[in-house]
Amino acid sequence: MFKINENFTKLEPSYLFTDIARRVKAYREQHPEADIISMGIGDVTRPLCPAVVEALIEGAREEGTPEGFHGYGPEQGYPRLRELIAEFDYKQRGMDIVPDEIFVGDGAKSDLGNIGDILSVDNLVCVTDPVYPVYVDTNVMAGRAGEKTESGGWSGIEYLPCTEENDFKPLLPQRVPDVIYLCYPNNPTGVALTRSELERWVNYALEHQALILFDSAYEAYITEKDVPHSIFEIPGSKRCAIEFRSFSKTAGFTGLRCGYTVVPMELKGRTTNGEEVSLNKMWNRRQTTKFNGASSLSQRAAEALYTPEGRSQVKENVAYYLENARLLRESLEKVGYKVAGGVNSPYVWVKAPEGKKSWEFFEELLDKCNLVTTPGVGFGQSGESYVRMTGFNTRENTLRALERVSKMRNEE
Amino acid sequence: MFKINENFTKLEPSYLFTDIARRVKAYREQHPEADIISMGIGDVTRPLCPAVVEALIEGAREEGTPEGFHGYGPEQGYPRLRELIAEFDYKQRGMDIVPDEIFVGDGAKSDLGNIGDILSVDNLVCVTDPVYPVYVDTNVMAGRAGEKTESGGWSGIEYLPCTEENDFKPLLPQRVPDVIYLCYPNNPTGVALTRSELERWVNYALEHQALILFDSAYEAYITEKDVPHSIFEIPGSKRCAIEFRSFSKTAGFTGLRCGYTVVPMELKGRTTNGEEVSLNKMWNRRQTTKFNGASSLSQRAAEALYTPEGRSQVKENVAYYLENARLLRESLEKVGYKVAGGVNSPYVWVKAPEGKKSWEFFEELLDKCNLVTTPGVGFGQSGESYVRMTGFNTRENTLRALERVSKMRNEE
Repeated sequence: MFKINENFTKLEPSYLFTDIARRVKAYREQHPEADIISMGIGDVTRPLCPAVVEALIEGAREEGTPEGFHGYGPEQGYPRLRELIAEFDYKQRGMDIVPDEIFVGDGAKSDLGNIGDILSVDNLVCVTDPVYPVYVDTNVMAGRAGEKTESGGWSGIEYLPCTEENDFKPLLPQRVPDVIYLCYPNNPTGVALTRSELERWVNYALEHQALILFDSAYEAYITEKDVPHSIFEIPGSKRCAIEFRSFSKTAGFTGLRCGYTVVPMELKGRTTNGEEVSLNKMWNRRQTTKFNGASSLSQRAAEALYTPEGRSQVKENVAYYLENARLLRESLEKVGYKVAGGVNSPYVWVKAPEGKKSWEFFEELLDKCNLVTTPGVGFGQSGESYVRMTGFNTRENTLRALERVSKMRNEE
Repeated sequence: MFKINENFTKLEPSYLFTDIARRVKAYREQHPEADIISMGIGDVTRPLCPAVVEALIEGAREEGTPEGFHGYGPEQGYPRLRELIAEFDYKQRGMDIVPDEIFVGDGAKSDLGNIGDILSVDNLVCVTDPVYPVYVDTNVMAGRAGEKTESGGWSGIEYLPCTEENDFKPLLPQRVPDVIYLCYPNNPTGVALTRSELERWVNYALEHQALILFDSAYEAYITEKDVPHSIFEIPGSKRCAIEFRSFSKTAGFTGLRCGYTVVPMELKGRTTNGEEVSLNKMWNRRQTTKFNGASSLSQRAAEALYTPEGRSQVKENVAYYLENARLLRESLEKVGYKVAGGVNSPYVWVKAPEGKKSWEFFEELLDKCNLVTTPGVGFGQSGESYVRMTGFNTRENTLRALERVSKMRNEE
């Protein structure tokens, strides 16, 4: 009789966005006239930029000709795109990352989910709290998370609370972990780490031979000078870190699907016999065996992002969302809310007033302002009493949303 | 200290296509004038059909507008595509498969590789020999394959030799397996199973509560009436099988990346406590957690394959490759080779004459005919003394290749 992976039965259904949708639906049924503005979802709203659209059309036309048709591409991505990434995202920022260290994939979620394939189930994992649920759930599936604890966490996962008290920046762990997930600029808090703060983590990882899985999907939103754009800006990081990047939040590729993962040549693990093993080679083997490359058209579209037009169009997009985030942050502060994020990130992390819980605040904003937000508790216990709002919206909607919040606050 | 998944260290590097490339390169250096024809690779050669190109261009244009932009799509695929698949690939063939049983992905390789996520590592796996290497390698990575045996196989894998003696159709296994990989029409042999032959497997799986992972990537090439197009044509199969399909070989999506996996609602596994668990729900959880959907444009292109134009263009492509395969099969037989496949498949499986080994035959065809083939031994021990040739070529090249082989045989 075939046996299932029973770790899946430990997972609770992921209800956050289903719950939100259900509550919004119920509200809409009672208030059919309500003009609801969604400020919650982490999906971009601006269309693909002209450079990308052109590249896609040109690519589609070529694929329709015998000379221009591409079949299977290299599983690691087309050389041209890997070279562009190495040049623009690393070399021009003073980092020495070569194309063979770059694996183009279909997005950061897949790679962050699949990276566990090359790691032992015996590693102690460490995540921040609040956290992107994919880090935790994929470790539960693999059996790495152990058992559910009374506090709602997992025995095999060390949680690092990110709270008002520590400026939403995690302290070093108490149990020494083997694998550390860091996402900066952070989803959901919107907070970034400075160079010296990230240095502390790299040094910690080197000291304890831990592996950092660094998710920098929001790198393009960094505006402050002392915030590193890549973990590879930090000396020694190539011996302890893998970096995950995405074109989703910069260029609106959430639907097209393209991202990349950097696994440095210097990054080595060890077998129980003490033999050194290259993680780059392991990931290469994983990808060539279980993946057939990102869509050739999506890769072609990604290449277009590195042309002068592409670069300026992406910058414009990012600036637009950042301006929304700035408006959110400043206006919400003005009316008396405590707000984090929104400086190096499209996300703002808003504390519920008067000791309210996340869902209470969510309901209040839905009921009084017709705004949909994301309850922070959905990202972990330390997210309780917060909601996440995002700059991924039109300017008009952002301003209308803020007007409604001001009005509500003035009437209180 | 972080620990790696040591199962990876058991894997030998996958050298088959690297070896082929190296030998071809060496030959080319010694014979720069040689007009080499590649008959080996399983990649299509005809461009994307007009219906697909149009859909891609239209889609790209729309994604460039605020109204037409799609961000994240459903991880399981867009409802429209899932409905088209259910209607055309199943309902119209008399099978009752609903859209919720269909998971659109980025290709059969990914899904065949990742399906192991929902299965216990304790399952005994069974594969045919020769076999698509992905089935074996992904089980080695997961630790399911056990240890390397003296005969070059794996202790945790039961091999079913497919040889001339059994018409390349596997006999039922000796050790009762938990998970059975079947690929029909077969890669690499090109042989298909008839309805009654597939029925025997379904009944065997039901009797032993085994799970069949059915790879039908070459379904579109079926020409004979008594060959089922889907395992779900067989009664009872919904309680024991998952089917993997791809648009790669039918519509040239090897670069675009789109396929789908059907996990029936009726398919249940059991926990060690005897609790019933839905594999459809498990796969849904796996995909929503570790995948973000196939590219929206690739899905749109796939939808176009179900229009009247798309359907007739795909049929034309398939007929073209099948005619190449027929030419290969008949001409090679005429000059005295033993050949399997090529009737319900783009692949023909050619036996090396005079007791030659696969690589010897490969070298002979390269040297005397300037043809590149795929040595059968690269697919497993029982592939020794065969080479795989494919109909994925132009008619002209196919005819030229055959002329050269005839000439060589006449001169022998």
